Amino acid sequence: MRHSSAEFISLSHDWLAQRALRSPDQLALVYGERARVFRRLDAEVTQLARSLLEHGVQPETRVAVLMRNSDDYALVVHALSRLGAILVPLNTRLTAREIAWQLGHINASILLHDETNRVRAVETLETLPNLQLESVSNLHSEIVNQQSAFTRLQSPFENQKLVPSAVEGSKIQTHSILFTSGTTGNPKAALLTYHNHWSNAVASALNLGLDTDDVWLVCMPLYHIGGLAILLRGVIYGNPVIIHPAFDPDAVNRAFDEQRVSIVSLVSTMLQRVLDARGDKPFPPTLRCVLLGGGPATAELLERCARVGVPVVQTYGLTEAASQVATLTPRDALRKLGSAGKPLMGIELRIEQQGEPLPQGEIGEIVISGPTVMREYVNDPQATARALRDGWFYTGDMGYLDDEGFLYVVSRRDDLIVSGGENIYPAEIEAVLNTHPSVIESAVIGVSHPEWGQSPVAYVVLQNGDTLTQDELQTFCARQLARFKIPTNIYFIPELPRNASGKVLRRNLAPPSPVKK
Amino acid sequence: MRHSSAEFISLSHDWLAQRALRSPDQLALVYGERARVFRRLDAEVTQLARSLLEHGVQPETRVAVLMRNSDDYALVVHALSRLGAILVPLNTRLTAREIAWQLGHINASILLHDETNRVRAVETLETLPNLQLESVSNLHSEIVNQQSAFTRLQSPFENQKLVPSAVEGSKIQTHSILFTSGTTGNPKAALLTYHNHWSNAVASALNLGLDTDDVWLVCMPLYHIGGLAILLRGVIYGNPVIIHPAFDPDAVNRAFDEQRVSIVSLVSTMLQRVLDARGDKPFPPTLRCVLLGGGPATAELLERCARVGVPVVQTYGLTEAASQVATLTPRDALRKLGSAGKPLMGIELRIEQQGEPLPQGEIGEIVISGPTVMREYVNDPQATARALRDGWFYTGDMGYLDDEGFLYVVSRRDDLIVSGGENIYPAEIEAVLNTHPSVIESAVIGVSHPEWGQSPVAYVVLQNGDTLTQDELQTFCARQLARFKIPTNIYFIPELPRNASGKVLRRNLAPPSPVKK
Repeated sequence: MRHSSAEFISLSHDWLAQRALRSPDQLALVYGERARVFRRLDAEVTQLARSLLEHGVQPETRVAVLMRNSDDYALVVHALSRLGAILVPLNTRLTAREIAWQLGHINASILLHDETNRVRAVETLETLPNLQLESVSNLHSEIVNQQSAFTRLQSPFENQKLVPSAVEGSKIQTHSILFTSGTTGNPKAALLTYHNHWSNAVASALNLGLDTDDVWLVCMPLYHIGGLAILLRGVIYGNPVIIHPAFDPDAVNRAFDEQRVSIVSLVSTMLQRVLDARGDKPFPPTLRCVLLGGGPATAELLERCARVGVPVVQTYGLTEAASQVATLTPRDALRKLGSAGKPLMGIELRIEQQGEPLPQGEIGEIVISGPTVMREYVNDPQATARALRDGWFYTGDMGYLDDEGFLYVVSRRDDLIVSGGENIYPAEIEAVLNTHPSVIESAVIGVSHPEWGQSPVAYVVLQNGDTLTQDELQTFCARQLARFKIPTNIYFIPELPRNASGKVLRRNLAPPSPVKK
Repeated sequence: MRHSSAEFISLSHDWLAQRALRSPDQLALVYGERARVFRRLDAEVTQLARSLLEHGVQPETRVAVLMRNSDDYALVVHALSRLGAILVPLNTRLTAREIAWQLGHINASILLHDETNRVRAVETLETLPNLQLESVSNLHSEIVNQQSAFTRLQSPFENQKLVPSAVEGSKIQTHSILFTSGTTGNPKAALLTYHNHWSNAVASALNLGLDTDDVWLVCMPLYHIGGLAILLRGVIYGNPVIIHPAFDPDAVNRAFDEQRVSIVSLVSTMLQRVLDARGDKPFPPTLRCVLLGGGPATAELLERCARVGVPVVQTYGLTEAASQVATLTPRDALRKLGSAGKPLMGIELRIEQQGEPLPQGEIGEIVISGPTVMREYVNDPQATARALRDGWFYTGDMGYLDDEGFLYVVSRRDDLIVSGGENIYPAEIEAVLNTHPSVIESAVIGVSHPEWGQSPVAYVVLQNGDTLTQDELQTFCARQLARFKIPTNIYFIPELPRNASGKVLRRNLAPPSPVKK
């Protein structure tokens, strides 16, 4: 059984097919008790792709995916590639309302969900009645039923297609659309090409090295670029990827000890919990790299890692650059405390203020350029024009370079709140608060949180005479916002502090100055 | 001292500058007693680039380089990159007349030479009186004299340029023009872009892995793609490269033992000599990869390597694909004897006959596609049109894929012998001849035959002291080969004529020059 070229796009975009040709018997994917080699993964992806095709998924179709971490997620990612369809991973913590907004924004016509997310998927139909819902477990049942209709499984060798022109097309061919939190209220939809993802995998390998014995562990959500990037690296490098359904520090430690994990990607709070759970047990020598994202780590954490021999590689990453942008090697970790290291090979980075590059040591906006930078924000020409200028991407993050060229990220763009690895933009929460009839205006800031790094708190000005409790307003938010975005504290104040030009002075909004009403 | 953007092209093409920013204190280059870290290499390259600029080298200038292997060669390669000029490496074994033909063919206006090649460089002026000769040692003297004029060495950090548009330009920006051996008359000038070289380095790393402790040894000519590719990988990967002035088996063994060489690139005859010179001394564990090119290795050689623990990785490479196309891992070396392995990640390969892909097991032309494939043969639209069709490169080599997708290169198409309508592949006959205990090596070519069009004749090198008649060897062949494949004449010669990369020069094997033993 050979695909017609009308059915599937060229092999050159289909990294899994390429990998299965080269390393058919190499371990590819481990999820719980289920392990697959590349040959088998490839065959199952072909089946799933065929099933998706029968359900109307075509090249360029935007397929939103609302699924928890699992091996099914990996199957879906590769099956969409095989079809030339576009992956749109959705944050599973979002409300149905938020999901519907995202789908509408990018005109996604199909929403693929698992059983866990069925209810929320159905709820989105209230807003988007024409949306086509597909359940991944239904697709699997169909495959089992139709099994006898297939003479035999597609062998990877037969996947080799004869449509080479797409090789050069990878620069523009869209792989996925990932939502980032938006400074102006609504999320932005970053469009990433095959070339972006491939270039990131390559740049990361040139930095971290590439061992044929590497085993990656993914315990971060696959809907984030940090998780998705590891899935893609697995097939590009030909290394096994172990997927955890959710972050569990004990499971992470067991994977270190029993599954020869060599690389894992974590944020500070997760690493802290892994260390706590581990106790005095030494780390195995097979663990060669802990990629640490989500903001600079504390000296205390880094020193603790150095003591117990955890090779921490701090990174600065962006959805818009397909993940890693800069990394700090373990060798420099303590010498350059708080630094995100140097930009990866192929990525240029400068610090800029009002269009002018700044000298070493001065703080300005971090601006990058390179083959990993996204093509655009989908259906948002204004945001695109603001972010992409003359081939440079304006990150909105502030930082500086020291005299050796090491990057220090001083603050994430504007007022970004990072809570347990999730980016939260105050504007989005403020927009929801302001829709309450009793609220005149509001301001949200991040405050430090013992477990999650930061959590959002809100300052609210009420209509004269109106009264409202924190609980009431939190409940109001919960209908429209993912749980992690709901302010942990809400303070009612008579007016927001502003500067002469009317801009809210967020730095004047630090607790405990405001008194809770 | 900061370059103006008019002087130097964007950083994105300047791999050395990028590397020096990231790994300034990493060892970069070793030649005899001279060792340089990336920071120093970068500074010296800036000086040389400035000097070349003063001598008229501009972006896009084609600079032919006639130099023996040395650290100067590496300086020149990187300095031309810094200027955006085009490197044209010349085979130092060519006559002045052949060099002049090549320079004229591609309109190179500057010939850069070292002291060893001064006389031949001057001789080319007889044919090309307008050629500008530049001596690399003169350039160095000028640099020393002007040293005081420089306030200080350029630091790598200051090299960072602000011209990002060229990032996307690497696909078309020319890096170098390399002449291929040209089995059919005049050499062809393969034009390789930055994208070609970068993609090859990446594909090779995805195959061989990438260790931050790797040390590459180059003992092949730097004017061949196999040598040049290692120089470029050095700066792309950030690993040190050790350059030997020429191939010396004892020096290679010393480098293994004393300089922690982890990867070396050799052809069979060189590897044989390294093994002979080594005797019983075990190979150090730091040697993790011997890349073996220039045609399939014999079972005897591979078994010998397996016995003494040399990790041989057989490769099939092409100048037109920036070097490696396919490789066979040590794990499969003995199981897939004679195979060149599988195509590198990102490279598609098929076997074709008269425009139709052939099924597994059938011999046809090897056709490849991918980001490593050259843009064109310079000033040779006919050869380009013949070789590049619809994005596929027609290698002219014949081979087949087995049922697991392993490539077997049967022979160069140019060597194909057609006798009475039957296709004869010299490699097949040579393989039989080489199994005779008295035969060291052999080469078979076609000569015209009054009745059958062509007939095969063999050139055979015997073990020292052995004697054998043509009749005896023909009888030996008759036991294993169809009648039409038995060489009609067999000539006994002391050694086969080879080019610098070890490839047998079949065109030098025309009768009646050899004397029948």
